[in-house]
Amino acid sequence: MVKMKVWAPKAQKVVLSIDGRFINLSEDNHGWWSVETSEICHGTTYSFFVDDQGPFPDPRSPYQPKGVHGPSQWINHALFKWTDADWAQPSIDSAIIYELHVGTFSPEGTFAAVIKRLDYLKDLGITHIELMPVAEFPGKRGWGYDGVDLFAPHHDYGGPDALKHLVNACHEKGLAVLLDVVYNHLGPDGNYLSCFGPYFTQHYKTPWGDAINFDGAYSDEIRRFFIDNALMWLRDYHFDGLRIDAVHAIVDTSAIHFLEQLAAEVNALEAKLNKKFVLIAESDLNDPRLIRSVDLGGYGINAQWNEDFHHALHSLLTGEQQRYYVDFGKLGDLAKALAQGFVYDGCYSRYRHRMHGRRLKNVSAHQLVGFIQNHDQIGNRAFGERVGHLLPQEKLKIAAALVILSPFIPLLFQGEEWGVSSPFLYFCDHVDKKLQDAVYEGRKNEFKDFANVSDKIPHPQAEETFLQSKLKWEELTEQKHAELLEWYRRLISLRRDHPDLRQESTEIDFNEEKLWLRMKRGSILLVCNFGEKAQSIPCQSAVKYRLLLSSSNTIRYQDNFISIPSTAVAIFKITI
Amino acid sequence: MVKMKVWAPKAQKVVLSIDGRFINLSEDNHGWWSVETSEICHGTTYSFFVDDQGPFPDPRSPYQPKGVHGPSQWINHALFKWTDADWAQPSIDSAIIYELHVGTFSPEGTFAAVIKRLDYLKDLGITHIELMPVAEFPGKRGWGYDGVDLFAPHHDYGGPDALKHLVNACHEKGLAVLLDVVYNHLGPDGNYLSCFGPYFTQHYKTPWGDAINFDGAYSDEIRRFFIDNALMWLRDYHFDGLRIDAVHAIVDTSAIHFLEQLAAEVNALEAKLNKKFVLIAESDLNDPRLIRSVDLGGYGINAQWNEDFHHALHSLLTGEQQRYYVDFGKLGDLAKALAQGFVYDGCYSRYRHRMHGRRLKNVSAHQLVGFIQNHDQIGNRAFGERVGHLLPQEKLKIAAALVILSPFIPLLFQGEEWGVSSPFLYFCDHVDKKLQDAVYEGRKNEFKDFANVSDKIPHPQAEETFLQSKLKWEELTEQKHAELLEWYRRLISLRRDHPDLRQESTEIDFNEEKLWLRMKRGSILLVCNFGEKAQSIPCQSAVKYRLLLSSSNTIRYQDNFISIPSTAVAIFKITI
Repeated sequence: MVKMKVWAPKAQKVVLSIDGRFINLSEDNHGWWSVETSEICHGTTYSFFVDDQGPFPDPRSPYQPKGVHGPSQWINHALFKWTDADWAQPSIDSAIIYELHVGTFSPEGTFAAVIKRLDYLKDLGITHIELMPVAEFPGKRGWGYDGVDLFAPHHDYGGPDALKHLVNACHEKGLAVLLDVVYNHLGPDGNYLSCFGPYFTQHYKTPWGDAINFDGAYSDEIRRFFIDNALMWLRDYHFDGLRIDAVHAIVDTSAIHFLEQLAAEVNALEAKLNKKFVLIAESDLNDPRLIRSVDLGGYGINAQWNEDFHHALHSLLTGEQQRYYVDFGKLGDLAKALAQGFVYDGCYSRYRHRMHGRRLKNVSAHQLVGFIQNHDQIGNRAFGERVGHLLPQEKLKIAAALVILSPFIPLLFQGEEWGVSSPFLYFCDHVDKKLQDAVYEGRKNEFKDFANVSDKIPHPQAEETFLQSKLKWEELTEQKHAELLEWYRRLISLRRDHPDLRQESTEIDFNEEKLWLRMKRGSILLVCNFGEKAQSIPCQSAVKYRLLLSSSNTIRYQDNFISIPSTAVAIFKITI
Repeated sequence: MVKMKVWAPKAQKVVLSIDGRFINLSEDNHGWWSVETSEICHGTTYSFFVDDQGPFPDPRSPYQPKGVHGPSQWINHALFKWTDADWAQPSIDSAIIYELHVGTFSPEGTFAAVIKRLDYLKDLGITHIELMPVAEFPGKRGWGYDGVDLFAPHHDYGGPDALKHLVNACHEKGLAVLLDVVYNHLGPDGNYLSCFGPYFTQHYKTPWGDAINFDGAYSDEIRRFFIDNALMWLRDYHFDGLRIDAVHAIVDTSAIHFLEQLAAEVNALEAKLNKKFVLIAESDLNDPRLIRSVDLGGYGINAQWNEDFHHALHSLLTGEQQRYYVDFGKLGDLAKALAQGFVYDGCYSRYRHRMHGRRLKNVSAHQLVGFIQNHDQIGNRAFGERVGHLLPQEKLKIAAALVILSPFIPLLFQGEEWGVSSPFLYFCDHVDKKLQDAVYEGRKNEFKDFANVSDKIPHPQAEETFLQSKLKWEELTEQKHAELLEWYRRLISLRRDHPDLRQESTEIDFNEEKLWLRMKRGSILLVCNFGEKAQSIPCQSAVKYRLLLSSSNTIRYQDNFISIPSTAVAIFKITI
């Protein structure tokens, strides 16, 4: 007997439909309906009717084998044979995260195909892979941020079993796995939640659709929906943690913020399972509250992405000043990010036309994730250019060194490590023609102020846009790409082998005019010349410097100076 | 020379108009426009034109002698002769607050007329009077929550000078003065702010109109507008503190919440002027963050109204279960409020259809304001009934004892102390007929579920509705009213004379079935019989009880019991 449950607080009648047979559910407390039935077992497809409307997929459908508009399929999670009982994820302090989009990571675009590359990732020195959202989204291809069946791994990626096999294989290889989850909105296509209850609110707006009702009437069960979703990935799919998308679009004025409740319930699950999980938020707020401890009035989320560090590094290296980069570009911005985490910590932002952020206090640099690219920073460009398309190899090497040796948790985006030539374009696969057009128009409109851009933007709906974005693994054998990969590998080894690089201590000196930066992390010194001329960078006397790694063969250390050619970086070990 | 300034960040041209003469302003930084002119002095009337639209009153008009649609009048605050240099307000711990609506407090309805009653209030034992909003609102009569010229004291109350005279007179009498300010919305009528800048946002909604733009583009100067308003009342009008209306409708997701910034800037003004100010918020969130210290992630507001205590006491005494009272009614609710502050501290609220609030931690009971009535709790009823209309005198005495001897800061609403027979109805005075009708329809709609109510609701626009709400001071000579007044006076004396009643310590015992409650506050014991039969309430043995005050002549203390008749309260001093 399986107990089938669904929440429909305003319904008068809820019916379970299995292959043309109908079973009435009865009303329990707080809007829940349920029935115990022997008609459901692992693999049964079913749907619901609410007040004679339907059939609708189960809001908590564990699987949508025919996509967002099809029936749900029931899964008995207990049947999977896990072999990772001894697995324990490494501490987040020592993590190197690799962000991965299942559809474009491999030619096959499936969970199973990811497994083939785990040795490669392990060998590179990756500790955590982070999957872009896998919850069922409309069509065959997409970034995943418009998912609508949040409990169902995407059928075209291979569905529930294939995902469990992937996580299990990662753990067997000694890799942790994080999952990107979207709790700020749902996609428009295949979104049947409003047929069941007041999941959405008109009180707040998000840029992507109706805001989720986290604090209005009936919100307890809506919060439960998302929190149970998080707990499911951690408990039933053995994920090691979650990356929570765009938390600034979660508006919740109740006394216990949704994210605080989420963190508390994940902590409780940790205690119950005797495991450690990690929660990482993407936030546009520069608000320390997110990652401060609950005792200090925070939400207790473990870490957040550090966008300011990205923007400072990207703008300095590319010289770009468009959109949010207008707030960055000085070496001082990068230095501030490395020393203090946020650049915008209460100062005026020209891009935002207001003061932004707050100084970090009572948080650790290991609570920030640092990167030179991620899916958004690439894909939100008109042509999906990676920094590899924008910068010469020497600058890529500087970027990699600063990301990987920074006090933050480094994150790489798939292919970054060999400067893959594939772009990462925005792609989707909507059935509805109107929606297809709307997405394309929205995309064009985003770039309307850039001459010769908006009419050349690849159509998100075109299969070609998706195919172009697939990683070109064959490039790995080419000398230029292999060289960059080797650089990444050696930087990651450095971080792994030198405990000082996993400490928070970071002393920054820089010269805005001469464009050099010096970062001392315990006994490790990184010096970087961003300028176009060779120069001598002052350094501490009465100690010795042993060169560990450099992007140039002409680094010289003499008296109180390190001589370094243009656009180069060198890493030393300080000894007495 | 006076420097005239106005913020209009998107304007191309701003002109100052004085009696048909026009002076161009020039653009400064961050959207500010200014001009130095000798044409303006104390008393000059003026207005602004923005991009040839106008005339508009100054958004920061210090005075609107002809109402919300008329010109502004410039005021030199330095000219007023204050005589309160030695004034220092008493600590909030020992405060008894008296909420007062200038228009209905006296027959005249002016600031000046309030002065005549200050001796009465002082004699009653009041320490702080709290004025309902006085900022210029449309028409001649109104509660004041639809004010639109937030820097201008209402002309019909007497304007800036009369208000300063009132505050000065209070200080001379030894009374502190608080002002109710509305920072969550502005009224619809006479609201010209949008002609100057993006003061409002479409991202959030409030029940009363467009939400204020506290966190979007250009919000720095909008936050300044409200904070400068607060600082003006404290600095230029010598108010001792502010009551901040409905802070739950202030939606601000930025890293430093508007209220935290407000509290910090008020603290800075305290330091500068070597004075103490108090900030009290009205909040529907039951969120301790509001009143926690900034170090613990709070906003640093000094205190907030405790609605739960009101609802628990009101519902218990009246038996009412309509609207939000559905969540209250048990003696246990009142006991919990007295012991812990909030009743809804994370538990499920039937009224709200969700869990509500959070447990108070690291805050003091003196950070909560307790009352059995206030303008809202009365005026939001269909017929503006006070508890004096709903309850017999014995119950009023119980309510008064529990409010005044509670661990909270007691607040009385004008006339409560003698059980005035005047209702406090909802009244307004809009010029626009459509708005008049809309308010009336809104009012009727609010009570549409109550039979025989909605068609009898007094028209808010009718002068009679306002006049009915005026205090009937002549009742003070009537025996019943005089007796209740004496009861209030003696309770207030008790609180003043017994330091234990100004401590936080509160031990509560109660019996839900027998309907008795015992509240021990240091050496003071209050026992209360809410039941309809006399009963003996158990009390600690091995100590002695000296009766200080009771609502009945038949209180007996014997062995381990205090015998008390039905619906009565008694207060004892415990001695050894």
